[in-house]
Amino acid sequence: MGDLEIRPATADDIPAIVAMLADDPLGAQRESPDDLTPYLSALERLSRDPHQFLVVADRDGQVVGTLQLTIIPGLSRKGATRSIIEAVRIHADERGSGLGTQFIEWAVEESRRQGCSLVQLTSDASRTDAHRFYERLGFTASHVGFKLAL
Amino acid sequence: MGDLEIRPATADDIPAIVAMLADDPLGAQRESPDDLTPYLSALERLSRDPHQFLVVADRDGQVVGTLQLTIIPGLSRKGATRSIIEAVRIHADERGSGLGTQFIEWAVEESRRQGCSLVQLTSDASRTDAHRFYERLGFTASHVGFKLAL
Repeated sequence: MGDLEIRPATADDIPAIVAMLADDPLGAQRESPDDLTPYLSALERLSRDPHQFLVVADRDGQVVGTLQLTIIPGLSRKGATRSIIEAVRIHADERGSGLGTQFIEWAVEESRRQGCSLVQLTSDASRTDAHRFYERLGFTASHVGFKLAL
Repeated sequence: MGDLEIRPATADDIPAIVAMLADDPLGAQRESPDDLTPYLSALERLSRDPHQFLVVADRDGQVVGTLQLTIIPGLSRKGATRSIIEAVRIHADERGSGLGTQFIEWAVEESRRQGCSLVQLTSDASRTDAHRFYERLGFTASHVGFKLAL
């Protein structure tokens, strides 16, 4: 396989990112790949926030993965800054290629560069393969994740 | 009981906030109430970030609760903005007073005002009382929360 570059997402990447968000048992129900307007607005909001890193994995000009890293300062744990990884998607053609591991390792390294002492993420209870994946990478399933839709 | 005000935290609130963070079975191990320097630096980082709302519940001039709300724009769910509630603490004297409910309801309303369509939080797997509390408030325990200390 060709070289992998992890770089900030641009408006040109939105169709490929939204296709990956929708190509997923849970995402298929909640995305609108035929109308990219709300995603382009969201990209603008993300670009204005210096604590947001929306990135893509680019292999030879093809977008093959995406994730969002958020840097969150805080008081607890002696004023620790933490990061949250959200919206991780790997293109179907790349599953099993090791890209997921490289990608999460990138997010962990970037969190370190940003001064974080903790990396967090939540994963839907039904994604048991993902849970094993994160545990292999050293994450601990110590918490219950709650959501409330408004 | 006197009137309750929910307001942004200031440097003067830090001793009371840190005392609450430390007065907790998990927090006791990881806070340093005798050295407030790292907390004051963290408050500065929080103050510079317009997506951070560190608040206290103030009853007649006494700080009786704290929580942190973070607003996170994103692409998934049609460009949905979400909020994350972190570091919720209620003073021991106020437990059972209904303050916890009022406080989370405030955070949910503030999330709505900020344009969020989803509120998230994680709670340590050992905090089973907290889990029932969040479920009573309408939250769904749909996710597993992973952490990696750096």
